[in-house]
Amino acid sequence: MPFSPVTIAPKRASAQLYRAIGGTHLAPLSSLRQFSNARNTPTSKEFFLEKKTEKVRKTPAAWPHPVYSYEQMEGVVVAHREAETMSDKVAFQAVKVLRWGLDFATGYKHDKATALHATDPQAAKAKYGMTEEKYMIRNIFLESVAGVPGMVAGMLRHLHSMRRMKRDNGWIESLLEESYNERMHLLTFLNMSQPGWFMRFMVLGAQGVWCNALFFAYLISPRTCHRFVGYLEEEAVITYTRQIKDIDAGRLPKWEKLPAPSIAIDYWKMPEDRRTMRDLLLYIRADESKHREVNHTLGNLDQVEDPNPYVSDYKDHARPHPCKDLSFQKPTGWERSDII
Amino acid sequence: MPFSPVTIAPKRASAQLYRAIGGTHLAPLSSLRQFSNARNTPTSKEFFLEKKTEKVRKTPAAWPHPVYSYEQMEGVVVAHREAETMSDKVAFQAVKVLRWGLDFATGYKHDKATALHATDPQAAKAKYGMTEEKYMIRNIFLESVAGVPGMVAGMLRHLHSMRRMKRDNGWIESLLEESYNERMHLLTFLNMSQPGWFMRFMVLGAQGVWCNALFFAYLISPRTCHRFVGYLEEEAVITYTRQIKDIDAGRLPKWEKLPAPSIAIDYWKMPEDRRTMRDLLLYIRADESKHREVNHTLGNLDQVEDPNPYVSDYKDHARPHPCKDLSFQKPTGWERSDII
Ligand SMILES: [Fe+2]
Ligand SMILES: [Fe+2]
Ligand SMILES: [Fe+2]
Ligand SMILES: [Fe+2]
Repeated sequence: MPFSPVTIAPKRASAQLYRAIGGTHLAPLSSLRQFSNARNTPTSKEFFLEKKTEKVRKTPAAWPHPVYSYEQMEGVVVAHREAETMSDKVAFQAVKVLRWGLDFATGYKHDKATALHATDPQAAKAKYGMTEEKYMIRNIFLESVAGVPGMVAGMLRHLHSMRRMKRDNGWIESLLEESYNERMHLLTFLNMSQPGWFMRFMVLGAQGVWCNALFFAYLISPRTCHRFVGYLEEEAVITYTRQIKDIDAGRLPKWEKLPAPSIAIDYWKMPEDRRTMRDLLLYIRADESKHREVNHTLGNLDQVEDPNPYVSDYKDHARPHPCKDLSFQKPTGWERSDII
Repeated sequence: MPFSPVTIAPKRASAQLYRAIGGTHLAPLSSLRQFSNARNTPTSKEFFLEKKTEKVRKTPAAWPHPVYSYEQMEGVVVAHREAETMSDKVAFQAVKVLRWGLDFATGYKHDKATALHATDPQAAKAKYGMTEEKYMIRNIFLESVAGVPGMVAGMLRHLHSMRRMKRDNGWIESLLEESYNERMHLLTFLNMSQPGWFMRFMVLGAQGVWCNALFFAYLISPRTCHRFVGYLEEEAVITYTRQIKDIDAGRLPKWEKLPAPSIAIDYWKMPEDRRTMRDLLLYIRADESKHREVNHTLGNLDQVEDPNPYVSDYKDHARPHPCKDLSFQKPTGWERSDII
């Protein structure tokens, strides 16, 4: 759920901060102590080695990933749902504020970047251009917070169901599955690049604040929270679309031949001839588009009474309906009248 | 996870409290406004009706239940794991304190009950004897708190995995599944008997305290928490064993022919000729015995490094090993040396 589509990177003010988290225009990232590529270091290999012992073989995915076809994944599009109600507008503004906060923290100056690009594209690229390392750092940070909303919402609905003594109607399952999927995104990226101590510290702090904010926000208005996650995921689709385009345009040479790690191959069941970084980003973007659709849909429903349309069985399978794979894509979510 | 094996019920002091939550020796429970049998009232039928609409058919179980055979379920035994370490002893004492607290709140006086039983068994039974309604109230209260530990532990391990950037090795899945299973116990009992407002109020308050206590306890010592749940589940097995024995001894006539509700038949896939209340209690007791084993086992493992043996694949399938069904039962848990 990286929610900020930044293709060009930090300026000056917080250069030190940014260097510490591994993104810098002063030195190649790989030369920083805090940032190292897991694929090349034995320590990180051990770090992420699946725990295998004499007697125990492996642990399969908690939620098996649905199968996506390449046509379906290539068909994922950037989209925006209009903010109509007051609740929608609050959610959309919250996403904007977070976007601004992250840009500020990473020292990204959009105005200066575009101004320089207009006069000297080469210089702009050198100064603000996104590299593989900068994208990776950004992806890791954002995926590390992306797994929180689904887990918090799932837990609160679970507790709510028990204390209200009412059935949940299948929402919890999708919410927990979403949080698991986001954690798999994070673990996949971590398998490719291990962040330094400052980045880890940032993740720690962010989780504390973020977790509590979502906890109380979901208690106050679950509908607004689902809409909010829907908007975050809109941004996530934008970010990953940009990364895929940058690969295709030859702007990310290190990623062109980079193979996807085995954790990703196992989880997404990636076909043998499709296991590059680009393929991986296609899968992840498709996941984000699914979260976008699911959360916009949940935001359209009655939070207490309506069943989760993503785990429901449908009478007419041919007619488009909400589903776990990409058979029927609805980027701005299903309206309540479509399904209930 | 009903953790208190009480076969005889409240005395005097808190009779009013007890009456309000539906357990009383002053009046038959079914006559109380707050307590009504869901099977007989149209309101509760609507209350628990699966949300079915024109377009949506049904929501299947989030975690399909493993299949138990009747021989396996009848083979579930009451057991106790010796408290060896300091951590074990803390966990065991905590269970004892909770047991005492619940007895106190429900006004149960063990000494007086046994004293009366020694002189006049008939009077003791009339005054303290457990009825179907008293058992049901107790089961509902305890199942409503039973779904908390697994969810809290699962959430904390999920957040831990993301902020520490380490794999979880499969624990989260089993913990969340446990909490789902406990919630299904609760919903099943609720389908048979709907509690009154006071009971609901008690559940609300208990959840608030319980949830927070477990949250902090799990942060401090996850090992102690797993052992604690292991001991709670020992008590749960005792409680359900007693209920089954009481049915067999003819002490719970209303339960003898009571059919299991459809939510239970679907969830446990109960065979057609085995759908009575006794069968239902066999399934639930077997679930509790599984939680007992799982949590005692998790309490024996390295909390950070070890994989979850319940979602691991084994090289030698014939050799006894931890599993989700009842193939290999180990009431006091698997030792770390057995599996890692
Ligand atoms: Fe993600
Ligand atoms: Fe996401
Ligand atoms: Fe239970
Ligand atoms: Fe239990």
